[in-house]
Amino acid sequence: MTDPTHPETAGTRLDPWFGAYAARAHGMRASEIRALFAVANRPEVVSLAGGMPYLEGLPLDVIAETMQRLILTKGTTALQYGSGQGEEVLREHITQVVALEGVEAHPDDVVVTTGSQQALDLVTRIFVDPGDVVLAEAPSYVGALGVFRSYQADVVHVPMDAHGLVPSELEAVLARLVTEGRRVKLLYTIPNFQNPAGVTLSVERRPQVLEICRRYGVLVVEDNPYGLLGFEGEPLPALRSYDDQGVLYLGSFSKTFAPGYRVGFVIAPHAVREKLVLASESSILSPSNASQLAVATYLETYDWRAQIKAYRELYRERRDALVGALAEHIPSATWNVPDGGFFVWVRLPEGLDARSMLPRAVTARVAYVPGTAFYYDGQGSDHMRLSFCFPTPERIREGVRRLATVVNAEAELVELFGTSAMPDPDTDDVESPAPDLA
Amino acid sequence: MTDPTHPETAGTRLDPWFGAYAARAHGMRASEIRALFAVANRPEVVSLAGGMPYLEGLPLDVIAETMQRLILTKGTTALQYGSGQGEEVLREHITQVVALEGVEAHPDDVVVTTGSQQALDLVTRIFVDPGDVVLAEAPSYVGALGVFRSYQADVVHVPMDAHGLVPSELEAVLARLVTEGRRVKLLYTIPNFQNPAGVTLSVERRPQVLEICRRYGVLVVEDNPYGLLGFEGEPLPALRSYDDQGVLYLGSFSKTFAPGYRVGFVIAPHAVREKLVLASESSILSPSNASQLAVATYLETYDWRAQIKAYRELYRERRDALVGALAEHIPSATWNVPDGGFFVWVRLPEGLDARSMLPRAVTARVAYVPGTAFYYDGQGSDHMRLSFCFPTPERIREGVRRLATVVNAEAELVELFGTSAMPDPDTDDVESPAPDLA
Repeated sequence: MTDPTHPETAGTRLDPWFGAYAARAHGMRASEIRALFAVANRPEVVSLAGGMPYLEGLPLDVIAETMQRLILTKGTTALQYGSGQGEEVLREHITQVVALEGVEAHPDDVVVTTGSQQALDLVTRIFVDPGDVVLAEAPSYVGALGVFRSYQADVVHVPMDAHGLVPSELEAVLARLVTEGRRVKLLYTIPNFQNPAGVTLSVERRPQVLEICRRYGVLVVEDNPYGLLGFEGEPLPALRSYDDQGVLYLGSFSKTFAPGYRVGFVIAPHAVREKLVLASESSILSPSNASQLAVATYLETYDWRAQIKAYRELYRERRDALVGALAEHIPSATWNVPDGGFFVWVRLPEGLDARSMLPRAVTARVAYVPGTAFYYDGQGSDHMRLSFCFPTPERIREGVRRLATVVNAEAELVELFGTSAMPDPDTDDVESPAPDLA
Repeated sequence: MTDPTHPETAGTRLDPWFGAYAARAHGMRASEIRALFAVANRPEVVSLAGGMPYLEGLPLDVIAETMQRLILTKGTTALQYGSGQGEEVLREHITQVVALEGVEAHPDDVVVTTGSQQALDLVTRIFVDPGDVVLAEAPSYVGALGVFRSYQADVVHVPMDAHGLVPSELEAVLARLVTEGRRVKLLYTIPNFQNPAGVTLSVERRPQVLEICRRYGVLVVEDNPYGLLGFEGEPLPALRSYDDQGVLYLGSFSKTFAPGYRVGFVIAPHAVREKLVLASESSILSPSNASQLAVATYLETYDWRAQIKAYRELYRERRDALVGALAEHIPSATWNVPDGGFFVWVRLPEGLDARSMLPRAVTARVAYVPGTAFYYDGQGSDHMRLSFCFPTPERIREGVRRLATVVNAEAELVELFGTSAMPDPDTDDVESPAPDLA
């Protein structure tokens, strides 16, 4: 106001309110990648970019009837405001779902959120002051990095290897940050079939990571959307199963059922849970009763365990299609073979830049997410994330064939000119998580 | 971390993470009123407290069939992630709804949110730095005050009279704040059937308020959940209908259709809209497609205008029941007679304190919201908000009879002892908007 920004007094022609934004909004710009993905969503493009689950396997007739019965029998509840913490009937079901990973929780410990993205937002909101440090795997989920940045946190990456987060590296990073006098608030980790790297934290390392965080007074945020989507054996015990006071467990029905209801949750120690409920009420009043009761009714009346099993088979077949096609068509790249989840993390041949290659890939009708999206600091241009969740195996193979043409053409350029890269990305951007990249 | 807070290193017995919260979370405590409302929700209590719409008038069979058909015919869209901005089909319908109040908007201008509460949260997030001033009517919506406080804003109240916000008072407050060098970011106003005061900003004052805000470079946030629920005549022109650059228009389907889907929206100038979408994606990825398509289908296939007309009749009858009962049973109080919406704002007889009276009222099986909830600064103890939206006319009359007994007993105490008041409320509390107070 002392700095008037209205069109008739100041501001810019493009944004009359330019001078009025909060500091936290300054970095909010749509990244150039987003514009590209608008093109990538066209049907002729094979998208290996998105994290959208494949929903055609769902029993739509059953869900349709469930919704109808729900409104007929519990309509005035389903259509009304609900509790800020979420409906108790759903919270009870949630405790049964997480029990599959060894989590013992009471319905009182659960807060239902608008997707687990909202849980991330609420946790960051109540814990992170500007300048606080959040630790995250290198690389990590683009949508989490966006949340941390929007609260003006400083993300410090911790290296992973084939067995997940490396405890000795975690310890070293923490020791250094202590020396520097930094306030480290959270360790954000995706222990199972990590997004984007596809790796899983080994059972041996789980208590080690927790012990280190406990020693340094760092709260662990365990983000676990893919834990039940492993291709072999039983789910591993969640970090929360070892420690109910030092871990916030974030879960979601987006990958195991359907994202369209936007139902996720967080399991938290009592006092933290209270603050999360207050923060959520301030943010949305209450999560959708219609959505919550739809999910609860699905869990109650349908064999959801069999559905998850069917998803596992489906995604395993697609993973096999993807890594098989990579071996056949792009043998010069390297990648991991994930045991579950949605993603393969591919290292490009020497000298190739995933970010500058993307426009050419989209022109060749295939899309992926460049590795830079998954780092806070501009790293990752030599990697790309390929997802195998949405396209059919045949489309996946076609996509990799197209990608191979692009990679080969880039490699020729590199051989001729030594590089194919664009200038570094503007790391001030909040690389906002386009919803279809979740 | 330099200040370790884990149970084994520090913290309190009740909350091991006590020392780890962000500054913005420090005031987040459940107010004492909330505990009381847990009791007030029992069926034997007549609640004149909640802002829940009366849903039994809805055509549940039609909605049930709509939901079934939606999943059968568009299931893989309804159950999938959607766009961060919201589904275009719904945004088109929204432009038709707001046209009833003279708002000319393009679907591109609309951002769909998880209830209009999320719109409030996003607007505050992108505009308000700690210490910035937000202007709000005195009194104002408890849930908005909670959002402003959670972003560490300083709310300055502007007086209203029977014709709404008083332009000369607005000008005087702004002039004073300029002199003090304060940054005023937003004017938050509910122009129609205001929550809690029930008054409506007159047509004459609408351009005056906008002109003052424009001159001082203050963005107007027009929160309009009740605009179509007027009991007489046509809806007044929205503030947004006068000015598409200086006003953010917040709307909701919670009062005119059903809150259980959590579908609200904000209409914003282009550049602001872009930031709102990015902030929303960071917060929830995308609003529920299932909810959005349910609302869009309802608007498309059902005579929603007739439903709103039915609501108007229903709520008018209840308002008449409430003000009639007040005149009969508590003539020593004073109140306004609202022309629409859900609320009557009652001034208690001299010396009575609405906040300290509440436990006795709940014991007498009637509940209301004390006026203090609607001020940032502890004012309002002489007022209470009575809502007429949810109970039947008969229950409303019974509630007022019970309330009269309590008021009369209090008045006797006052006559004997000069006061019935408790100590002042702790104004550091975020009086979080319990969902049923919306």
